[in-house]
Amino acid sequence: MALQGRRMKRYHPPGTSPGTLRAPEGPAYPLRVMVIDYGLDRLIEKEIHSVEELEPYRDTPTVTWINVEGLHDIPFLEGLGKLFKFHPLALEDVLNCGQRPKLEDYGDYHFLVMKSLSLDQDELEIEQISFFLSGNYVITLQEVPGDSFEAVRQRIRQGKGQIRKLGPDYLLYALVDALMDEFFPVLERYGERIEEMEDKVILRPAPETLNEIHGIKRDLLELRRISWPEREVIGSLQRDEAHLIQADTRVYLRDCYDHAIQVIDMIETYRDLATGLLDVYLSSASNRLNEVMKVLTIISTIFIPLNFIAGVYGMNFDRQASPLNMPELGWYFGYPAVLTVMAITGGALALYFKRKGWF
Amino acid sequence: MALQGRRMKRYHPPGTSPGTLRAPEGPAYPLRVMVIDYGLDRLIEKEIHSVEELEPYRDTPTVTWINVEGLHDIPFLEGLGKLFKFHPLALEDVLNCGQRPKLEDYGDYHFLVMKSLSLDQDELEIEQISFFLSGNYVITLQEVPGDSFEAVRQRIRQGKGQIRKLGPDYLLYALVDALMDEFFPVLERYGERIEEMEDKVILRPAPETLNEIHGIKRDLLELRRISWPEREVIGSLQRDEAHLIQADTRVYLRDCYDHAIQVIDMIETYRDLATGLLDVYLSSASNRLNEVMKVLTIISTIFIPLNFIAGVYGMNFDRQASPLNMPELGWYFGYPAVLTVMAITGGALALYFKRKGWF
Amino acid sequence: MALQGRRMKRYHPPGTSPGTLRAPEGPAYPLRVMVIDYGLDRLIEKEIHSVEELEPYRDTPTVTWINVEGLHDIPFLEGLGKLFKFHPLALEDVLNCGQRPKLEDYGDYHFLVMKSLSLDQDELEIEQISFFLSGNYVITLQEVPGDSFEAVRQRIRQGKGQIRKLGPDYLLYALVDALMDEFFPVLERYGERIEEMEDKVILRPAPETLNEIHGIKRDLLELRRISWPEREVIGSLQRDEAHLIQADTRVYLRDCYDHAIQVIDMIETYRDLATGLLDVYLSSASNRLNEVMKVLTIISTIFIPLNFIAGVYGMNFDRQASPLNMPELGWYFGYPAVLTVMAITGGALALYFKRKGWF
Amino acid sequence: MALQGRRMKRYHPPGTSPGTLRAPEGPAYPLRVMVIDYGLDRLIEKEIHSVEELEPYRDTPTVTWINVEGLHDIPFLEGLGKLFKFHPLALEDVLNCGQRPKLEDYGDYHFLVMKSLSLDQDELEIEQISFFLSGNYVITLQEVPGDSFEAVRQRIRQGKGQIRKLGPDYLLYALVDALMDEFFPVLERYGERIEEMEDKVILRPAPETLNEIHGIKRDLLELRRISWPEREVIGSLQRDEAHLIQADTRVYLRDCYDHAIQVIDMIETYRDLATGLLDVYLSSASNRLNEVMKVLTIISTIFIPLNFIAGVYGMNFDRQASPLNMPELGWYFGYPAVLTVMAITGGALALYFKRKGWF
Amino acid sequence: MALQGRRMKRYHPPGTSPGTLRAPEGPAYPLRVMVIDYGLDRLIEKEIHSVEELEPYRDTPTVTWINVEGLHDIPFLEGLGKLFKFHPLALEDVLNCGQRPKLEDYGDYHFLVMKSLSLDQDELEIEQISFFLSGNYVITLQEVPGDSFEAVRQRIRQGKGQIRKLGPDYLLYALVDALMDEFFPVLERYGERIEEMEDKVILRPAPETLNEIHGIKRDLLELRRISWPEREVIGSLQRDEAHLIQADTRVYLRDCYDHAIQVIDMIETYRDLATGLLDVYLSSASNRLNEVMKVLTIISTIFIPLNFIAGVYGMNFDRQASPLNMPELGWYFGYPAVLTVMAITGGALALYFKRKGWF
Repeated sequence: MALQGRRMKRYHPPGTSPGTLRAPEGPAYPLRVMVIDYGLDRLIEKEIHSVEELEPYRDTPTVTWINVEGLHDIPFLEGLGKLFKFHPLALEDVLNCGQRPKLEDYGDYHFLVMKSLSLDQDELEIEQISFFLSGNYVITLQEVPGDSFEAVRQRIRQGKGQIRKLGPDYLLYALVDALMDEFFPVLERYGERIEEMEDKVILRPAPETLNEIHGIKRDLLELRRISWPEREVIGSLQRDEAHLIQADTRVYLRDCYDHAIQVIDMIETYRDLATGLLDVYLSSASNRLNEVMKVLTIISTIFIPLNFIAGVYGMNFDRQASPLNMPELGWYFGYPAVLTVMAITGGALALYFKRKGWF
Repeated sequence: MALQGRRMKRYHPPGTSPGTLRAPEGPAYPLRVMVIDYGLDRLIEKEIHSVEELEPYRDTPTVTWINVEGLHDIPFLEGLGKLFKFHPLALEDVLNCGQRPKLEDYGDYHFLVMKSLSLDQDELEIEQISFFLSGNYVITLQEVPGDSFEAVRQRIRQGKGQIRKLGPDYLLYALVDALMDEFFPVLERYGERIEEMEDKVILRPAPETLNEIHGIKRDLLELRRISWPEREVIGSLQRDEAHLIQADTRVYLRDCYDHAIQVIDMIETYRDLATGLLDVYLSSASNRLNEVMKVLTIISTIFIPLNFIAGVYGMNFDRQASPLNMPELGWYFGYPAVLTVMAITGGALALYFKRKGWF
Repeated sequence: MALQGRRMKRYHPPGTSPGTLRAPEGPAYPLRVMVIDYGLDRLIEKEIHSVEELEPYRDTPTVTWINVEGLHDIPFLEGLGKLFKFHPLALEDVLNCGQRPKLEDYGDYHFLVMKSLSLDQDELEIEQISFFLSGNYVITLQEVPGDSFEAVRQRIRQGKGQIRKLGPDYLLYALVDALMDEFFPVLERYGERIEEMEDKVILRPAPETLNEIHGIKRDLLELRRISWPEREVIGSLQRDEAHLIQADTRVYLRDCYDHAIQVIDMIETYRDLATGLLDVYLSSASNRLNEVMKVLTIISTIFIPLNFIAGVYGMNFDRQASPLNMPELGWYFGYPAVLTVMAITGGALALYFKRKGWF
Repeated sequence: MALQGRRMKRYHPPGTSPGTLRAPEGPAYPLRVMVIDYGLDRLIEKEIHSVEELEPYRDTPTVTWINVEGLHDIPFLEGLGKLFKFHPLALEDVLNCGQRPKLEDYGDYHFLVMKSLSLDQDELEIEQISFFLSGNYVITLQEVPGDSFEAVRQRIRQGKGQIRKLGPDYLLYALVDALMDEFFPVLERYGERIEEMEDKVILRPAPETLNEIHGIKRDLLELRRISWPEREVIGSLQRDEAHLIQADTRVYLRDCYDHAIQVIDMIETYRDLATGLLDVYLSSASNRLNEVMKVLTIISTIFIPLNFIAGVYGMNFDRQASPLNMPELGWYFGYPAVLTVMAITGGALALYFKRKGWF
Repeated sequence: MALQGRRMKRYHPPGTSPGTLRAPEGPAYPLRVMVIDYGLDRLIEKEIHSVEELEPYRDTPTVTWINVEGLHDIPFLEGLGKLFKFHPLALEDVLNCGQRPKLEDYGDYHFLVMKSLSLDQDELEIEQISFFLSGNYVITLQEVPGDSFEAVRQRIRQGKGQIRKLGPDYLLYALVDALMDEFFPVLERYGERIEEMEDKVILRPAPETLNEIHGIKRDLLELRRISWPEREVIGSLQRDEAHLIQADTRVYLRDCYDHAIQVIDMIETYRDLATGLLDVYLSSASNRLNEVMKVLTIISTIFIPLNFIAGVYGMNFDRQASPLNMPELGWYFGYPAVLTVMAITGGALALYFKRKGWF
């Protein structure tokens, strides 16, 4: 994926007035808006179809989670922005899917950009998810439908854990934590692939391996680009800067921050391992090839003097003209003697090379 | 470009008195001064030809934008400096086109140096643009005529967005943001070129590829040198340090600062990718070559023993002199037998090498 | 080990409610709980089998050390958490054996994660050890039974040193220091292995060496990942942040912090040495191979002209047809002369190559 | 130069009492002391020959610039130190020509160490220049006579710019700025050399190129070692730390600081370019060589089977003994047929290799 | 040395009670204790043999310097610790010769660990020296007898410089400065060796060179490990942290701190140079070898077609059987013609290769 995804234009044309909304490029997913409104003993979950339906939820004291999938319905988003009084720049960032993860404090509400990860047959897929958090709601927006939040939805429905007791800041934590948790199986898979390649690289170094290591390094680079700013975001949420986060939730965010550090730690380690692997691959491949070349050269070198001997006795000096001209040709044991000399020469050379440890 | 541009002398002779104005080297573009003076319901746009014409705009409460193209008319610049009371060091920096992007606070006005980017057939072109910002005007100066600001000019003319409602600090933001926005299509192009080369590098590694990767790395290095200080400049504008920036504009500058970080992020990623590409290129090129050498060497090695056999039976031992001398030559099936032995030897060697996975 | 250990899933499924306890993967070691309760002139040491037995120790003024081995008995751990009022997130971290070393302050108690090291036939083994420290107890928890703390236990029993006079903070120091001390013999062994390889790498570079250096580098990377956060943990304990640590103990922790810095220093040095070794190996291996290839090529090159001479006099030009056709074949000293020419040619070439310093 | 210069012992013997004056090693330049004493409408310039002549200038309110060339006259320097009450450690540093650039505040006066640069036929030459600045004088000391300050001297004489109006702190700025300005033509030259080599490296990689790149890298390393501490020195002068600098001069020093950053920026860029060049050189050189080897090997490989065919028909099987023994030798078209077979084989191989893109 | 020295176990067994004294490994040097007690007009210098003899010096207002060589007499050290009330952890560090340089403030006294350097035939030797500084004494302890402090001793005896006028803090400075000064001749030697190798590496690259560069890099790595913490130690002494240091001495320590920075600077530069040298060596060695291989291959390639021609005319086609069979063999100028063709072919090939710049 990586570069593939980058191919889509993810910026507005230079000079555009800031805050102009423009649907993202790529296939348009249909708009789907789910509302969950809950308190300690209250739970409403329904799909809505127009901005107006959202109005009653805006100022209720219960926690409201509005999940928006599909970002091509610009009028809806403008309505949403007007209803909740969002800054146009924040809305613009929701649509601009190449944002870095970040946290912005707009006073009444916080605006977050995070990423959701998945692996589809070892292809890394990264989607952008935007959050608005105020004192009584969380709004999440994403282009591509995904199920990153399904487990959180289940916990709300079943009232498991703390989630029904605490406010929208805890809900935000739960959602962000769900996104951080997605890193672990993905990284685990990269760890496995690196490990699988560790054997390959020594035993059967193949050009595909090179390609695969390069691909892993590129993906890890991509993950690194995401994880560092996500750590910053969670760190800011956990500290006093984010005034909408309650003290109770901060303990949980500290835990989530720990996960982020662990993720970064794993990414850096895997990057180091992949680089080490590349070095081993390169020297192992060149080793193997050189061994082959050496054996071939040794074979040639052993035969060269033998060929020379054969060449000498293939010369046509006139034995009639002089007794000094190649008398060996007339000896009784001439031919066997020469064959023996050849065998000894070849054997001696082979032995010598062997002794020297050359093969 | 890169080095090309650096070839022009971009410094004054050592020991020159500070604040001495000296026209930049290179071709002289004619002076062209455009004034746009606007308020909520007022818009004057005209070209002026002498410093005196500028005087009425200096102290009016409306926003005045003076855009100067061409920096070879030293008397005009001295007049401008005198009229607006600019420090001689600031004016000197306007002419010295090798400045790093920077923000300097001279009390009554801020002085900024930024860069404008464009690609001309994959050639990176970088021009310097200087800004003076006071409470009621923005002055922009650049050597080479360019259209980086055309979109902003349109927005002023059409009264789109906030621009007509807010002061010169917002205008400055809009202009700086236009410059930051120029990075995206440029970087996009580098991303595309890297991607195109990813396939080439594996399938058809050619020396030109090496050259092109080197060129991309050099350009990215150049972009990096610009983007880091530009980020600092925007960061300073956004914080309290820049006292001429209003609170309303700071939110927009925060957005612009985000873009700067994103630009740096992309540059660093592309640099990493280009370096990775170089590694893949090098090992892929050496792989291909080594494969060729191996095949050639294997061909030679197979023929070497065959040549030896032929050589042996080319020897001239005197079969008359002794029955031991090359009796094979007189055998009925001698020649076919030797050909068979040769075929078997060659085939066996080829099979052996194949088995060993050597080709 | 390294990757092997990483293969175990060390994370809970994405979206799990925070604070859910889940037994670690891998073989289940049986639960074993040892309590040592001591003061200046009091020492009770016994094994206990249920959480209830621990209750009397919770609030006594004496120092209580509870050591738990085996983490598969979830009900016991839940009971422990309830009895000592531990935060569920801390307990979850005890079971999640892929934690980075860390110190968390929960007000009444501190929670630490550290690692224990050992080498089993040059295989690095890393186990996680969790600590809870309050004003009157230290609780240590680990999955795999180990004897990292045996020496401390002895010192308590024998009342040697300060340990019986000071509080649980000193006990924590002693335990953490014991873990830091484990680094030294382990690193010493890596130092020895690097040293052993230094000779090998010059004299007998073998592919196994490459593999071993790669393994050492991987292990050092792993140790580095542990030692940096452990240094941070000890640094935090030593500073005012950790309010449960007494001033007297801080001097000892400063010493322990010194050890941590020394450990990091050694790791970085060994990493540098291992990288240097890799470079030497690679160039030494390629040197040796190239020397071999050169000698072989020189042998071939010396024989090539000799073969040519032999080939010339193997031509069948008809001496009858013309006195110019190979008259040498009929000369009296033809054959000896040609042999001499060959010897001189070969000798001259060998001498020339020798002179040039080519072998 | 670099290492050459380092060969001179630039340290006093270990254990020497601090503050002991000792003439620098190397050739002794004769002492030459020039005094310029000036105010707004006063200018005295004369050479003096003894310390006593300097006394009248010490406490006058006019600005006095004492320039000392040649540092082998120890008694003079001791007299100077006594007259102006300099700390012995500062005087020792003046003589120790291996100092890093630095700024030291001795209360009544500041002591600076800076470096002067020049290129003599692409040989980098670096000299040390020491400064003492008090409220009414600047003293500069250097071993080797040089003309780094000639332009400043001219400006004083001609009363150009601000220099005659402002105090010794502005004089110090002017001198330091003159030294910073020396970097630009020097770096420009390195830029040119790198650029020249960029073409060479692709078209005609030669071992000398390698040597030259190495030399450039070494020089840039040397320049880097100087420029970083010089930036610090100027930064300290510009901030409040240097209490002898007036507010008016600080604006100028900010400009000078900008130059220092620009210098560092250029050095780092050139270092990156030189490193990139080295990579391109290495792969381009190995590319060229490998291409040569490939062509040579292909030629050999094409002839190997032809030689084999010739060898076969050079065998001496007895055609009398059997009709199966080399009947081809008796065929009417035998010889032309074999030549044709050879031509076809050779051509086919050449074509095959060509098709495969091997040459 | 480096690794050699590291082979000695330099740590106490894991879990040992902190503050346990244990003689260092390696050969035991005999204990030798020298006391120098001095004031402005007082100087006592004598060797003492028991701890009791030291008691009178403990509280006198004069400056006392106790120098202890040989650390195997544990009872003496314990007595010393008791007499001067040293913390057991400090004493333990005195014996543990693998400490990093450090400064510890124990209130009444400061404890320092530093290193002494020497070169024995280009073998780097590093010894640990510990210091205790209080208001009226300095105690130095070292395992191996050395003469690092001889020059300081001379200065005390002769009353040269400030040393007799100032307190124990100045003495400490003088001793530490003597240790810093030892770096310069040692580094100078490394500089010389690098320089010597610069020529060798281009002209006569030999495998020993590789080995020597590797050795230099390892030693510089070792020096770096020492110099960084020593700089920190001196920096701490110079700042207010070290309350036993008088203001007068701080100026001298600033000078010493400068030396430390200069040392680090030289080490880093030499490391860079050594790395650059390694690169040059590697490419120069591979260059030379490749040149050899190229020449050899060219020789072979020139002879290959000649051999082919000779082979053709060595074929035995029956000229009787057909006029087309090798009629050249019967030509009058057959043999000379073939020799000429051979000479022309060989010459043309050689010329072609030469033209192409292949040799």
